Amino acid sequence: MDELKFVTSNPHKFREAETILEEYGIEVKWVNLKYPELQADTLEEVVLHSLRWLKKKIEEPFFIEDAGLFIHSLKGFPGPYSSYVFRTIGNEGILRLMKGIKEREATFRSVIGLVIEDKLYTFRGETQGYIADSARGTLWGFDPIFIPKDMGGLTYAELGMRKNLVSHRRKSLELMASWFSRKVKKA
Amino acid sequence: MDELKFVTSNPHKFREAETILEEYGIEVKWVNLKYPELQADTLEEVVLHSLRWLKKKIEEPFFIEDAGLFIHSLKGFPGPYSSYVFRTIGNEGILRLMKGIKEREATFRSVIGLVIEDKLYTFRGETQGYIADSARGTLWGFDPIFIPKDMGGLTYAELGMRKNLVSHRRKSLELMASWFSRKVKKA
Repeated sequence: MDELKFVTSNPHKFREAETILEEYGIEVKWVNLKYPELQADTLEEVVLHSLRWLKKKIEEPFFIEDAGLFIHSLKGFPGPYSSYVFRTIGNEGILRLMKGIKEREATFRSVIGLVIEDKLYTFRGETQGYIADSARGTLWGFDPIFIPKDMGGLTYAELGMRKNLVSHRRKSLELMASWFSRKVKKA
Repeated sequence: MDELKFVTSNPHKFREAETILEEYGIEVKWVNLKYPELQADTLEEVVLHSLRWLKKKIEEPFFIEDAGLFIHSLKGFPGPYSSYVFRTIGNEGILRLMKGIKEREATFRSVIGLVIEDKLYTFRGETQGYIADSARGTLWGFDPIFIPKDMGGLTYAELGMRKNLVSHRRKSLELMASWFSRKVKKA
């Protein structure tokens, strides 16, 4: 029972989850599959809709994860559409939008959706930070332009493996892992 | 049989469709309803997914419409996410992204999805044009920053009712209307 399936077509996400969940004695199996995602203003809505679709195809327990960068002065843009926005206007586009704007607060948010015993659960992890003035570090998504708080002003991308210590995804994974471990112990 | 339902929560869209379809002797009934929309890179995918959901709730024949502004130098951004992008970064954000960019070509695209006799159809209308240097005219969505070709350099917003003569939505509505009229005549 200490095994969970992670449905994702993104190998980066799978590896990050594998590393973190190992610390909790949870083995992760990769299900490499794309699934429909809803247009919605919150990650929770997106995730719950996808879980309902996947429930009919995949044997539980399994989870999915969706993440987004919410920039406060841009009313949360790019938010749940981060992946599309990254593929089109990219980091350069975000930096253009933020040029000359002093209020640079942003939240990197990760929401996990889990199906277990025919029930749906969500877990939210958040990391507060700022949008950098320029892109720094090796590319993965918006990592080169996001500076998490209290990490010496380095971007996610510059932090390398140390990103895993403070990442939004670590937080949502830990919430799920500790909840899941308690549940399994009880059973 | 010369009656079609238009499912939309947007009164602007309903009025535009009503005016245009009247010319074809088609009466439009407004079904004011929100429905789920998929995250996808094409409007056709978004529309077909919504139709499948609505088919179970609404008696045919009915149609829906989705539109997007595709800016060529931004790899099609904001495309199918135009409504979210408008609500967050708005026209000001688009103008910032386009600042100093010479290649300003853009396509305003409208896709109609129609359900009739248990079948799904899509109709695409497009208007080619440019992104303006500044917003001009009364606000509705991206209308103040889109200049259609061959209309004297005025934006959609400045054209007022004359927009209906060249709009992407007129084109998709006309395609559907003429197809529908032929079908009804045959029957």
